[in-house]
Amino acid sequence: MARVKANIDPDKIDRVAGNGLLHRRALLRSGIALAGGLSAGAGFKVTAAAAAPLAEADWGLAPGDPVPAYQTPSKFAKNVVRSLSNPNFEPRTSQSRAPHQLLDGMITPNGVFFTIVHGGVPAIDPSVHKLLIHGLVKHPLIFSYEALLRYPMTSRIAFVECGGNSAGLFSPQPLPADVQALHGLVSCAEWTGVRLSTLLEETGIDPKAKWFIGEGADAPHVMRSVPLAKALDDTIVALYQNGEPLMPGNGYPMRLLLPGYEGNMNIKYLRRIKLLPEPAMSYWESQIYTEPLPSGEAYQFYFVNEVKSFITKPSPGLSLQKPGLHEISGLAYSGKGRITKVLVSADGGQSWGEAGLQEPVLSMAFTRFRMPWQWNGGPAVLQSRAWDEDGNAQPTRAEFVAARGELPAVPPLLAFENHHYNGVTSWAVDQKGQVTHVYA
Amino acid sequence: MARVKANIDPDKIDRVAGNGLLHRRALLRSGIALAGGLSAGAGFKVTAAAAAPLAEADWGLAPGDPVPAYQTPSKFAKNVVRSLSNPNFEPRTSQSRAPHQLLDGMITPNGVFFTIVHGGVPAIDPSVHKLLIHGLVKHPLIFSYEALLRYPMTSRIAFVECGGNSAGLFSPQPLPADVQALHGLVSCAEWTGVRLSTLLEETGIDPKAKWFIGEGADAPHVMRSVPLAKALDDTIVALYQNGEPLMPGNGYPMRLLLPGYEGNMNIKYLRRIKLLPEPAMSYWESQIYTEPLPSGEAYQFYFVNEVKSFITKPSPGLSLQKPGLHEISGLAYSGKGRITKVLVSADGGQSWGEAGLQEPVLSMAFTRFRMPWQWNGGPAVLQSRAWDEDGNAQPTRAEFVAARGELPAVPPLLAFENHHYNGVTSWAVDQKGQVTHVYA
Repeated sequence: MARVKANIDPDKIDRVAGNGLLHRRALLRSGIALAGGLSAGAGFKVTAAAAAPLAEADWGLAPGDPVPAYQTPSKFAKNVVRSLSNPNFEPRTSQSRAPHQLLDGMITPNGVFFTIVHGGVPAIDPSVHKLLIHGLVKHPLIFSYEALLRYPMTSRIAFVECGGNSAGLFSPQPLPADVQALHGLVSCAEWTGVRLSTLLEETGIDPKAKWFIGEGADAPHVMRSVPLAKALDDTIVALYQNGEPLMPGNGYPMRLLLPGYEGNMNIKYLRRIKLLPEPAMSYWESQIYTEPLPSGEAYQFYFVNEVKSFITKPSPGLSLQKPGLHEISGLAYSGKGRITKVLVSADGGQSWGEAGLQEPVLSMAFTRFRMPWQWNGGPAVLQSRAWDEDGNAQPTRAEFVAARGELPAVPPLLAFENHHYNGVTSWAVDQKGQVTHVYA
Repeated sequence: MARVKANIDPDKIDRVAGNGLLHRRALLRSGIALAGGLSAGAGFKVTAAAAAPLAEADWGLAPGDPVPAYQTPSKFAKNVVRSLSNPNFEPRTSQSRAPHQLLDGMITPNGVFFTIVHGGVPAIDPSVHKLLIHGLVKHPLIFSYEALLRYPMTSRIAFVECGGNSAGLFSPQPLPADVQALHGLVSCAEWTGVRLSTLLEETGIDPKAKWFIGEGADAPHVMRSVPLAKALDDTIVALYQNGEPLMPGNGYPMRLLLPGYEGNMNIKYLRRIKLLPEPAMSYWESQIYTEPLPSGEAYQFYFVNEVKSFITKPSPGLSLQKPGLHEISGLAYSGKGRITKVLVSADGGQSWGEAGLQEPVLSMAFTRFRMPWQWNGGPAVLQSRAWDEDGNAQPTRAEFVAARGELPAVPPLLAFENHHYNGVTSWAVDQKGQVTHVYA
């Protein structure tokens, strides 16, 4: 560096918690408190400009590539993809996890939106596929895709999270895993479709109906029971994901979107909705998606993804280059409404500072939080905790384990037979700037 | 249809303007006013369910396809792509237009986000690419991509629109074109990156600096001058688009994002920012992106994309199947802030009703509007007009032409040497339900 412009003493920047956490206004637009602190302090690869003209690279000297009708990422971004739990496509469930450590913002792009399929990705012809609504209705009806496209639509930005996301945190020992492996089974998109309530006005509802079951058209025919009140509240039969038709792994041509409810209830490849007097007790809800408790009992139903957050940057694989100013950034969300507050700690929970929340802060959507941090080069343990408008606080891991227990991993790695971990995640930073998953 | 459930007389639904426009609350959640009106009226392909079980399609009987690391749309959605102005990749500008007639919501997905490139799509290696900031700064600096990734970030959802979008509306005769051909050079994404003001705090600013010029790294080296005030206000050096690294056609690895300013000022493949005492009068701003006026004079600079809207559904290519209830839906946006109101007409502007605005309504972002419409089967002319929080009203086409003139098309079709058309678009619906572009 040819210069050090330190007109603000870093030590005079507002510190809001121990081990270097700064007031979130340090990241706001005026940013004056940071002047000189960034490149001088954090050792970014910023160099003073020489007098020579810019060198011309190949791409400045010749035409580029043709424009495709549908564009995909640069070959230089080929690492920004989903990790595959079943790359050889053996006859079992396939998880693909979103690379949150390499993403930023609140939208998960369609290419890397997480998927779980139990029998591969079906190639469904929308001119053949139908949606049947029957059971305790007055007039059972069959809707074509073309018919649904012509109904009044609604849009909302909402996360979808697998009940098994973050299950690695049930492990009695911290796992040597990154944020993609631990928390990659959640994503957030703008969904557009027809309110289920609109379709139920078409069929009419028998007053005896209290639940409905949704069923998928792919071979596993996943079925889950949902309270009818949810159908009449905010359930959408979604046709679009971030503006375009649903991705094949996310339910094309149509899926349920139950804002805030665990992923597999948001039935993909939706072909059937049956209104019922009580839950159907399907395989998927009675055998798979239950929550064992330390007492030996289990929660029968556990629908809502409760308030949660995790730090995506820094995180394992993203090492810190040098002491100085860094941004701590992550995702917070709640199936019970808007995020109201995220606290961040750099000393393993001894002290906490409030992070900035990126607008827009929407109910049941990802909220990106950002926090400036002056890393002094010493060891640190980074944590985040979120609160929602319903008054819920994300538990510490100790609080969570006291209530829900621990559980050894079942091979393959990260397959845990428990769900809905929403406790704190801790990242340790060592003196070399390496980041690892720890319990603290 | 096995039944007609018309417990609400369609004639008693609140009508807010002529030729069948209904109050927007008819699309709100309770939706009771629509009961029976949808399938019975609009002739959707809804059928009463027979007693027989659902037929199993191939995809219900066998495993599907493997899960890819990066997913792309279904083969059955292959028409939901950009149209290419230069499919044989001749040595000229290539426009690709977003298929707004087949999208819904406010986010344009990355795969079909519009692009314009003047020399093809460069394949830029981010480990080689650098950003130089120099000119009237105190300390010229060179930033690597890796360095920028480590700066504090900000995110916002914002549209980007080519100054030449909608130029077909300058034609003295309406063009036989659809919404993609006429309005496909605008899209909206969540952008994340580093505030340019942050980087300028690093370099310092010479008080004589009043403008800056941004320059692209691809062969055309597009350069545009921007007032320095914009740099210090809301300009972002964007690194992420809808969460993932920028698409190659949209500036990978980095671009300027000047919210509300015409597309090509948002320099893609950004390699250089030079602070200047006055505009640079580059080729791109003195020869190409000017706005000729009927007087023979021209606007020298015309930065802001002013308030605008157009209807995407119904629109040419999306015919109406039968009389009955339909949703009129479209996009509104303004480079001067939030959309405050969208009015819709079904009688060519004789009467207007207020459309519903889909939340969230964000400054300088797409706002999706929705309006229920009871089509009686007769001729109709559909229009939309938007207003923004800055008090600006979208002009009618007659008002626009009075101020800005008309201009015959230059081959190839839709290449017009004028810019910033933001007047009303009119779609005529005939008695067969066919939709065409007209002037009204």
